[in-house]
Amino acid sequence: MIKRRKTRTVSAGKVKIGSKHPVVIQSMVKLATTDIAACVKQINALSAAGAQLVRIAIPTRQDSIAFAKIVKKVKIPLIADIHFSPERAVEAIEGGAAKIRLNPGNIKSEDDINRIIDCAKAHKIAIRIGINEASIRNLFHDTPQRKRTPLMIREMAGYIRLFEKRGFNDIVLSVKSSDVARTLESNIAIAEKFDYPIHLGLTHAGLAEDAIVPASVAIGTLLWQGIGDTIRISIAGDPVQEVEIAKKILASIGLYKSREPQLIVCPTCGRCRWDLIGFARQVKKLLKEVKNPLRVAVMGCVVNGPGEAADADIAVCAAADKGFIYKKGKKIATVKQSQLFAALKKEIEKYEK
Amino acid sequence: MIKRRKTRTVSAGKVKIGSKHPVVIQSMVKLATTDIAACVKQINALSAAGAQLVRIAIPTRQDSIAFAKIVKKVKIPLIADIHFSPERAVEAIEGGAAKIRLNPGNIKSEDDINRIIDCAKAHKIAIRIGINEASIRNLFHDTPQRKRTPLMIREMAGYIRLFEKRGFNDIVLSVKSSDVARTLESNIAIAEKFDYPIHLGLTHAGLAEDAIVPASVAIGTLLWQGIGDTIRISIAGDPVQEVEIAKKILASIGLYKSREPQLIVCPTCGRCRWDLIGFARQVKKLLKEVKNPLRVAVMGCVVNGPGEAADADIAVCAAADKGFIYKKGKKIATVKQSQLFAALKKEIEKYEK
Repeated sequence: MIKRRKTRTVSAGKVKIGSKHPVVIQSMVKLATTDIAACVKQINALSAAGAQLVRIAIPTRQDSIAFAKIVKKVKIPLIADIHFSPERAVEAIEGGAAKIRLNPGNIKSEDDINRIIDCAKAHKIAIRIGINEASIRNLFHDTPQRKRTPLMIREMAGYIRLFEKRGFNDIVLSVKSSDVARTLESNIAIAEKFDYPIHLGLTHAGLAEDAIVPASVAIGTLLWQGIGDTIRISIAGDPVQEVEIAKKILASIGLYKSREPQLIVCPTCGRCRWDLIGFARQVKKLLKEVKNPLRVAVMGCVVNGPGEAADADIAVCAAADKGFIYKKGKKIATVKQSQLFAALKKEIEKYEK
Repeated sequence: MIKRRKTRTVSAGKVKIGSKHPVVIQSMVKLATTDIAACVKQINALSAAGAQLVRIAIPTRQDSIAFAKIVKKVKIPLIADIHFSPERAVEAIEGGAAKIRLNPGNIKSEDDINRIIDCAKAHKIAIRIGINEASIRNLFHDTPQRKRTPLMIREMAGYIRLFEKRGFNDIVLSVKSSDVARTLESNIAIAEKFDYPIHLGLTHAGLAEDAIVPASVAIGTLLWQGIGDTIRISIAGDPVQEVEIAKKILASIGLYKSREPQLIVCPTCGRCRWDLIGFARQVKKLLKEVKNPLRVAVMGCVVNGPGEAADADIAVCAAADKGFIYKKGKKIATVKQSQLFAALKKEIEKYEK
């Protein structure tokens, strides 16, 4: 359905980023890099949750040393974020980074950039040019927010030119903002202008309850247009949640095949005369134990019940007193309402075998 | 930024639906319609949360009677969902519905449809033609899911023809599916084909934690393309939450001006050496009391801190020991880390006055 925009392929260690490959999920370590054991644990948790790349901050020389040790202890490629320091960039590359992130707002001298490019080239690693609206604040002066996109793109184009001049093309681009509209506009603009893979994210989106909706809107809208080759959901909270939301966004538009069971639930209305939502919560708990992508539908009445049942592996639908169980759309049992959960449970267990 | 697709304007009581008007938020009552007092309470809660239209199910004659009483007790226009029964449609219209929803999968006889149209015309109310993939299951036979969109559109076109033949144009269209890709495809198709306002929704999206991401992706993507004149977020849970999520989706792309304070929070990384997330949670609590759209940023370090501060009314940014407070981008105080919260609280209180 989605036609990915054609891009070059860029490698970050064993992970390929670009339109010929599935969209790569990434996240970031949120601990002091010098706490090696804790960082390794968090990286492993992120990898187990589905992250294929993990970024980590290298603010000091001590962090560079710790980073080189962490690289050796984990199985997935790491990305170093070096913020202001060309020294940290070189140290991170020599320490085993598969990719580094450069923020044009923070590293500006052409000599510094060239030094980093040469080091990245020698080590065959990738570089993300990651513009952040907040980091290039000085460019905007009094430019109103809605007119900043062209300035961000100009900054990106100028930076890319330095890389191309040096024959370095293993670059991934990102333009982030905490504003959804500007994130959309600026990513659409760079997608038209360049053929490098794009890293998508909405920056500083906030606490989970505030971040999930705008991140889903921004990243979902771009992916649907074929834009985006790697994504990172920023949440002020546990990074594992970032990976879970990333998977949900990708799965919603068919860019990720979830191995988890799926629960379809009707939102209920005045036609529904039983505690469907309580029932669905119980089913959800049951499904936590299921290890395959079973699709279960819990429907409140006959309006859409049989229709959703037809697209589900197992479905239930109930009237005031009776409940019906469907398997691949075929009604296989009619039971008392009070026995519906037990009957469904049995069917799910059967399916598991 | 968003160019709404041009549509006719359709009125549901005092509420106007169409591209000349802001996108209308709606939700649905989830209680037995015969429980008049509880329904009135829920409708008022939905209205207070921001819903401008509320739908309610009318499965039986008793529900029609209750509906007519509810209409008189609430201040916002109500939409009646009559599912299978032309009698309920007529009763609901006569009972004061501002709009009714007809599901082409459930009301098929041309005589029945004409009777409903004539009644709607006499009472000057609107009709939503609401196709639901699950309700027209019988049309698909063995058509694989990804090929169903043209069948849904054909069904819609046939139904619309009956209305146009009778000179009735006060219609709103919807095509819902529990699948995001099909929701996108089919809404894009009807948006190209017709100039009636479109009601957007993702049906049977599930429990809140499962529904929010796909609903945001589907509805956000369509709205960004200018498609959608009224939206309903389906969540198997409290309908007030449906309205809150609808507002968040609209606000994220500038289609709704939230009056609530906004909290920008950096997701933190290894550079952040203080409990920023705990701090942000405390600020969030504080902001619950704030009654204006104050924009507060809580940032972990100097990488993006000053930049986000520039776009915020009040911002804080901290290093290991010191914290900085910004007002409209200007640093106004440097305090000890331990005093940062108290200092921020004071600034927020000042702003409130």
